Amino acid sequence: MNAITRDEAALATRLLEDFARIGADLAGGFTRPAWGEAETACHAILAEAGAAQGLASHMDGVGNLWLAPPGLVGPAPATGSHLDSVPRGGNFDGAAGAVAGLLLAIRAARIGLPLRAVALRGEESPWFGGPYVGTRAGFGALDAAELAVERRGGGGSLAACIAAVGGDPALAGAGRPLPEFAAVTAFWELHIEQGPVLLDRDLPAAAVGAVRGHLRLPAARCIGEAGHSGVVPRHLRHDPAMALAELLNDLDTVWARQEQEGFDLVLTAGVMATEAGEATATRIPGEVAFALDIRSTDPLVLKNMERFLADRCREIGRRRGVEFQLGRAVRTAPIVLDATRTAAIADALPRPHTMPSGAGHDAAEFARHGVPAAMVFVRNRNGSHNPAEAMEVADLMAGVEALWGAIRAVEAA
Amino acid sequence: MNAITRDEAALATRLLEDFARIGADLAGGFTRPAWGEAETACHAILAEAGAAQGLASHMDGVGNLWLAPPGLVGPAPATGSHLDSVPRGGNFDGAAGAVAGLLLAIRAARIGLPLRAVALRGEESPWFGGPYVGTRAGFGALDAAELAVERRGGGGSLAACIAAVGGDPALAGAGRPLPEFAAVTAFWELHIEQGPVLLDRDLPAAAVGAVRGHLRLPAARCIGEAGHSGVVPRHLRHDPAMALAELLNDLDTVWARQEQEGFDLVLTAGVMATEAGEATATRIPGEVAFALDIRSTDPLVLKNMERFLADRCREIGRRRGVEFQLGRAVRTAPIVLDATRTAAIADALPRPHTMPSGAGHDAAEFARHGVPAAMVFVRNRNGSHNPAEAMEVADLMAGVEALWGAIRAVEAA
Repeated sequence: MNAITRDEAALATRLLEDFARIGADLAGGFTRPAWGEAETACHAILAEAGAAQGLASHMDGVGNLWLAPPGLVGPAPATGSHLDSVPRGGNFDGAAGAVAGLLLAIRAARIGLPLRAVALRGEESPWFGGPYVGTRAGFGALDAAELAVERRGGGGSLAACIAAVGGDPALAGAGRPLPEFAAVTAFWELHIEQGPVLLDRDLPAAAVGAVRGHLRLPAARCIGEAGHSGVVPRHLRHDPAMALAELLNDLDTVWARQEQEGFDLVLTAGVMATEAGEATATRIPGEVAFALDIRSTDPLVLKNMERFLADRCREIGRRRGVEFQLGRAVRTAPIVLDATRTAAIADALPRPHTMPSGAGHDAAEFARHGVPAAMVFVRNRNGSHNPAEAMEVADLMAGVEALWGAIRAVEAA
Repeated sequence: MNAITRDEAALATRLLEDFARIGADLAGGFTRPAWGEAETACHAILAEAGAAQGLASHMDGVGNLWLAPPGLVGPAPATGSHLDSVPRGGNFDGAAGAVAGLLLAIRAARIGLPLRAVALRGEESPWFGGPYVGTRAGFGALDAAELAVERRGGGGSLAACIAAVGGDPALAGAGRPLPEFAAVTAFWELHIEQGPVLLDRDLPAAAVGAVRGHLRLPAARCIGEAGHSGVVPRHLRHDPAMALAELLNDLDTVWARQEQEGFDLVLTAGVMATEAGEATATRIPGEVAFALDIRSTDPLVLKNMERFLADRCREIGRRRGVEFQLGRAVRTAPIVLDATRTAAIADALPRPHTMPSGAGHDAAEFARHGVPAAMVFVRNRNGSHNPAEAMEVADLMAGVEALWGAIRAVEAA
């Protein structure tokens, strides 16, 4: 590590410590609500650190913070992430990428490479019921219903929250991007990995090739017929628990096969619940509630899984005399990130690795609005959205180096 | 139906109507607590109906009601069932057999065949936490801890409840049977079927060959590791929901095979529950609670299933990185009823059929104490322990005829 990198690591450490102090929640973990005081305080600290390195900063019309050399005008690439957290979450989800953005903008300013850093507002879903709110507001893409949603934990509607930081909620729903967003020619984001893959592979960082889309069934049910556990023979049962077990086992078997064939897929039954207050060891359940979340980077895999699921529900339901009611389905399309930039990040890593992201990110939202976007994941222990998130600053710096190498290779050309 | 049978059916109808009126619960269904006022009132009605036909009645030392011709002394077979119900249960579980006992004792008295009828107290588990309490008390088989259990819904301890009806709680724990129980040379019981088999087979009644024993795991758990549903690849998961699905599906597959090979088995996962308050569609569960109830008339099947279960838990646990904790196990041995008497019941039916009982009954408790015992099941809709129990008196009479034929064939010989 040379002297410059050492100073950068020290700055990153200090900023992350400041963010932790500001976000510390008495109930445990870190809480920085979207458009809240802690988020705004973090923006101020980032702006101050930028100013110390000669960067100018300003807030856009909906509350996001932009940093750039005073002379930079017009279209340019941008880099950054968000500074809000989930309630009682960790310190690094979002904040790591905001810090990386500042470090990269400082480096770029030194060599005259046009690059802006951005700290986005409100990426986390819990606050207003949906994700990427700061980015979507920047694109003018929110609708009236979204602007009217009350913030979890108080503070009024999203519109009121935007106004409270000095923004103009009308711009967030204007149907066209703010000038700052219109000027983004490419978006680069560093984020902690929220799963265990980099730890398992002993890699500090990896390029992200795509963000998985999903088919989510949050409120599915299998309906059968309750009965005495001892007295109903197998062929006269309508047992929703055994039917669900068969369905999940079939899905799991197909998942294993898809993975062997190289298709991207993850699949989770996050909820399974017999009837509260009625279920006992000696009663065939009358009904089992369950939830499914099926994700893939490949729209065809999602489509095939949805068809497979429907077929199995029908066949198992008929054979076992039960009815699957899958309920409300939430579908999000996969987002393939910019191939050139993703390859440039992988090339800039000492041990190139490209992996999918299982969760959505601001970069994917930029991509959805037609901006070429790329991401680097940084190793992190214990998942995210919990106080035990653990990223080492050395790994953050490895991610910064990969983005820096890629930005110079692609954006300076 | 001849005139005598018509009178019997009318008496049965009237008695069951009286029991229904006495047990009617304002909250729905029928509630006749063990050693409670409703149960005692039903005893009185039965005694009165017996007296009208020349039968003498008396209460034994723990509260059970016995009916017999005044001249009958010494050892003799007995028939009957219980008159308590579960809270908000049905009208026929137990009561049908108590009525049948009276009808059979009246018939026997007419032809000088020695036979006593008995209305047993407290067969249902909810009242004192265990079943067959009246029968076990009659055998002097209760221990001090059981006698100290408070009745659900009030009324004091079991000892206090026995004393309240004029019994002597010391006799219930004396370690030797009351004279009335010592005199029972064989026990015959009619009971509604609690499952759908007779309805499905269009049979009014069937002989019961054995009472299933069980291996019950009321509080089992599969423990894994929680995680974000989108970001943990299959091989790095410790998913207890998928592990449980595989286990249940394996058990179900073995069940189907055992059934094809002619072994008696029923198997139920009555409870499956991800963590309340934490489980969501987008979270790999950290843990799933479940319950298992495995029943068979064959002790070897139960033993093999327990071994299979342990093997699968170990293998699935190792492969999937989860741990099954099966918790407390409750084991009850199967009871084979008296073969001669079972065959005699089947022979006395127009269409002979013998089936297992999935639930325990007083007859099985007599058998456990070395008394030859036999049962007939009568067709009933909607299972038992619920207000929708539905038995037709014509089917009750078919069961009475079968018992009558069998008792004459076996006990008069």
